[in-house]
Amino acid sequence: MKPPMTYDGRHLLADLYDCPVLDDVALVETALRDAAEQAGATVIGLHLHHFGEGQGVTGVALLAESHMSIHSWPEHGYAAVDIFLCGARHDPDAALQALVRHLAPARISRNMIRRGDLSGPPIE
Amino acid sequence: MKPPMTYDGRHLLADLYDCPVLDDVALVETALRDAAEQAGATVIGLHLHHFGEGQGVTGVALLAESHMSIHSWPEHGYAAVDIFLCGARHDPDAALQALVRHLAPARISRNMIRRGDLSGPPIE
Repeated sequence: MKPPMTYDGRHLLADLYDCPVLDDVALVETALRDAAEQAGATVIGLHLHHFGEGQGVTGVALLAESHMSIHSWPEHGYAAVDIFLCGARHDPDAALQALVRHLAPARISRNMIRRGDLSGPPIE
Repeated sequence: MKPPMTYDGRHLLADLYDCPVLDDVALVETALRDAAEQAGATVIGLHLHHFGEGQGVTGVALLAESHMSIHSWPEHGYAAVDIFLCGARHDPDAALQALVRHLAPARISRNMIRRGDLSGPPIE
């Protein structure tokens, strides 16, 4: 499996507030898989950890195009999301919309950061 | 294993340019383990993927305090790093310094982003 041909790194950080359910590892897994699919990204591996009954979940999807993660704090109704995709044909916002559909926050703060100023020619 | 007691989310994004060796999966693993140790973070899982001979490496460390990742593009000498740590006693810059020691970039661009405005009292 090869990484994408042209580097175009975009890193979307989003803070999701007032999410109703954040201690459900299956929900986090479903959200990550759906987000990858909606962004047209390829999942290399999906890794989840539940800190215990009623506690947070950490989920990271390794992608051919970089990664996505969710870290949740149910006691605050808060989830921290990051979506790092390289390749212009992949849309971090489509992934975020999928995560939002599953996690249902009342409020979102988002921050898109361009990653890597690669002055060389595109990789062929 | 419990997540840290007090939420204090800091997400450090760093672009590492002109790194001499970026297709070595063992180097990426060593860098991530050392970075976690230097930050006083607890590794829950370490996941690596090599895209092939002379090609990039993706490495993600799941931490009790969130995650760290390295994605490398050897053809550009470029590595994209993120270090997301919650808990005031953990120092993302100490982790970055460890990554820099291993990956030896000629130039770095860094961007520290505060994650999550949790207005409730600290978790006891």
